[in-house]
Amino acid sequence: MQVYLNGSYVEHTDAKVSVGDRAFVFGDGIYEVVRVVNGQFFMEDEHMVRMDEGLAGLKIHLEKDKKDKIPDIGRKLISMNNLENGQAKVYIQITRGSAWPRTHTFPDPPVEPTIYLSAEPFTPHKDLHEKGVDAITLSDVRWSRCNLKTVNLLPNTMAKQEARDQGVNSAVMIRDGVITESPNANIFGAKDGILRTYPATNYILNGITRQAVLTIAEEEDIDVNLQPIGEHELFDMDELFFTGTTTDVQPVVEVNGRAIGTGKPGPVCRKIQEIYNEKLAGGE
Amino acid sequence: MQVYLNGSYVEHTDAKVSVGDRAFVFGDGIYEVVRVVNGQFFMEDEHMVRMDEGLAGLKIHLEKDKKDKIPDIGRKLISMNNLENGQAKVYIQITRGSAWPRTHTFPDPPVEPTIYLSAEPFTPHKDLHEKGVDAITLSDVRWSRCNLKTVNLLPNTMAKQEARDQGVNSAVMIRDGVITESPNANIFGAKDGILRTYPATNYILNGITRQAVLTIAEEEDIDVNLQPIGEHELFDMDELFFTGTTTDVQPVVEVNGRAIGTGKPGPVCRKIQEIYNEKLAGGE
Repeated sequence: MQVYLNGSYVEHTDAKVSVGDRAFVFGDGIYEVVRVVNGQFFMEDEHMVRMDEGLAGLKIHLEKDKKDKIPDIGRKLISMNNLENGQAKVYIQITRGSAWPRTHTFPDPPVEPTIYLSAEPFTPHKDLHEKGVDAITLSDVRWSRCNLKTVNLLPNTMAKQEARDQGVNSAVMIRDGVITESPNANIFGAKDGILRTYPATNYILNGITRQAVLTIAEEEDIDVNLQPIGEHELFDMDELFFTGTTTDVQPVVEVNGRAIGTGKPGPVCRKIQEIYNEKLAGGE
Repeated sequence: MQVYLNGSYVEHTDAKVSVGDRAFVFGDGIYEVVRVVNGQFFMEDEHMVRMDEGLAGLKIHLEKDKKDKIPDIGRKLISMNNLENGQAKVYIQITRGSAWPRTHTFPDPPVEPTIYLSAEPFTPHKDLHEKGVDAITLSDVRWSRCNLKTVNLLPNTMAKQEARDQGVNSAVMIRDGVITESPNANIFGAKDGILRTYPATNYILNGITRQAVLTIAEEEDIDVNLQPIGEHELFDMDELFFTGTTTDVQPVVEVNGRAIGTGKPGPVCRKIQEIYNEKLAGGE
């Protein structure tokens, strides 16, 4: 598999960064994952806007011409890896770059950011979309700048692994008594036909798929209440679902061994799934 | 400068890790920094115990014989880099290893952890120890597992940089109305001869120098109150100081432009500094 690293296209096994790279020693970088359908980048602009926000949030300065070339690098990788047909995903990571000696303060003068992209085939989790998944509740131990899509992902990986160790698909994370996110997806609830999800504050990542779902809700006249779902309200929800770039729209039918609603994917989720899948297939 | 990476001693510019290394993509690893004085590792056992706790906390399994060899790898680097005389520091980082494809859950079966060590000369901040430093207060935005010394250090680097951008040395971080840590050191206060510092919970790193200071306090019959210093109490403190492996014992004489106590290093800090420096010089 060919990947891109700092100007070169190389086999992924040959793609290596310095131990001085600030992503390696500090997790000092941001990333994006973009869905690609038949060579078309899904919601490319939204991903690029968020990437920009991430860079600004971390004060990583990437020259405009380098930034502008990123989608085309992704497209070239799609082509080089013969992924023009069917489903794929492009991973983009930008770090503050490699600096010596290791010191908390940013390199001064700044160093060249590290740019890394990969493109891989992707198989949507169709069975999970159909049947729904189970989850456990876990404490959301992340920092309070979750709006930045950084590679400081240790709490996310640990929560995901904890869920798997407990034999379930994922986790519903709780902070201050309310539901925030899963380790790698946003969470929506539905009650009496009204959607509920955490507002786009610093305590969640404003997912691109979350944004797509909110747009669908608007188009379909589904009311949305951006009031976090309280932990105590979880089992009062008629429906619950995860949304994310590789998660798509995924019903959550059981939490902590207890059914959500009927224990089966519900009509609001099904409707949104259907429209989202059409948009995704259409490359809108 | 020679460093160690996964079994090899190489020039630091040649030390490279895969872009699949989980520290690069997730910040999934732990680290330690050990002070070395005339070839002697200061508080080596304490660092090794904490490293072990970090590995356990992240569920990274490193074989015992590999773990046991780490201090000797550090000593070999000290020797290879001609650092046997005077002050130096050894950096140790262990990550969950390199895995493909990138996925939040831990590699199954596990992969070989990445082991990286460097050794550099170190110049203690004598002028700062003498005169003291200034700081600003900043919100502590870190996750709630600060007891683990992981490379998810983005909030720390951002806070340190924010302090520097505001023209001061460092930051006093506040969570829930109380003082936790600086971006790279523990914080002690003194009031009426009694030391105050945040207890060793999940909200701070239990620094090795913090532990040394608490031992000194015990030896010197200085009372310690492990009650966090409230933000509202900050300017009531007679003294304030940072402690850390490369910070040593460093007076904080001004916060947000306002003097702490007399605005000069105080007697409790001076006494602890003196004893700490003796211990450090003696390699105890």
